[in-house]
Amino acid sequence: MSGTTINTPKGTPFVEVIREFDATPAQLFKIVSNPDLIAQWMGPRELDVTVEKYDVRPGGTYRYVHRDESGEYAFRGVFHSVEQDKHIIQTFEWEGAPGEVFLDMMEIEPTENGVRLHQQSVFPSVESRDQTIEYGMEHGIRDSMDRLAELVAKEG
Amino acid sequence: MSGTTINTPKGTPFVEVIREFDATPAQLFKIVSNPDLIAQWMGPRELDVTVEKYDVRPGGTYRYVHRDESGEYAFRGVFHSVEQDKHIIQTFEWEGAPGEVFLDMMEIEPTENGVRLHQQSVFPSVESRDQTIEYGMEHGIRDSMDRLAELVAKEG
Repeated sequence: MSGTTINTPKGTPFVEVIREFDATPAQLFKIVSNPDLIAQWMGPRELDVTVEKYDVRPGGTYRYVHRDESGEYAFRGVFHSVEQDKHIIQTFEWEGAPGEVFLDMMEIEPTENGVRLHQQSVFPSVESRDQTIEYGMEHGIRDSMDRLAELVAKEG
Repeated sequence: MSGTTINTPKGTPFVEVIREFDATPAQLFKIVSNPDLIAQWMGPRELDVTVEKYDVRPGGTYRYVHRDESGEYAFRGVFHSVEQDKHIIQTFEWEGAPGEVFLDMMEIEPTENGVRLHQQSVFPSVESRDQTIEYGMEHGIRDSMDRLAELVAKEG
């Protein structure tokens, strides 16, 4: 399994994630946009996730809740644009930090051997990004990307 | 009429706009969220604007078109969150630069003598922000804010 690249350039509000998968754009798009599959890869392995809504279309909204013994962490947002097999642009807000909304732009690009997922997150401030990284964002991203790769292999 | 402060810190993807109005939060919120009033203040004075849709609620979408002799400029986005008389968070995309989506966060705060509008725009890159400024963003903002102040005075 290839690794996940996470770039967090110092002093910027950006987080860039790059990961390659052994899949077609259509296979990957299906897994990242299907509400029934989201719960199988989204977030760190040690947390349960309940997807209440995941309506992938422009103006569609989503909300999911991670749970562990210490509590609940709910996330919500809205989809700005969706292009089948190509890209999804959405907002993202952790309900524990209301108003700290960021934008997630996911691009799916075919490569010679599969597909590349390229995600750029833009935070409302450098401080907001740095704090989210401190809260363990990279661990969540790495687990999510690894679980996504496992699901790609399983779903074919 | 007091002036509009526009801060564009060098090397960042941020544009901050601050303007005070002689109004209550409810009066200002009404004008910035009512589809029938948007066309009366949004954008530079020299452009006509047609508001096709402006559905201010979480998951609501908007689209408006500026026109002059040289052509049309269409803008679209989706509302992430809306709190009556307090804030609006929305995405923003000029259709001439598809995929260059940014996030607009508008806060309305009461002051001793009226109300302060505080808007923070976050672009997907520093280059994208710089280019938008080159295209005349500041002129559009200053005209919009002045027209908003005129409309506040007229609407009471």
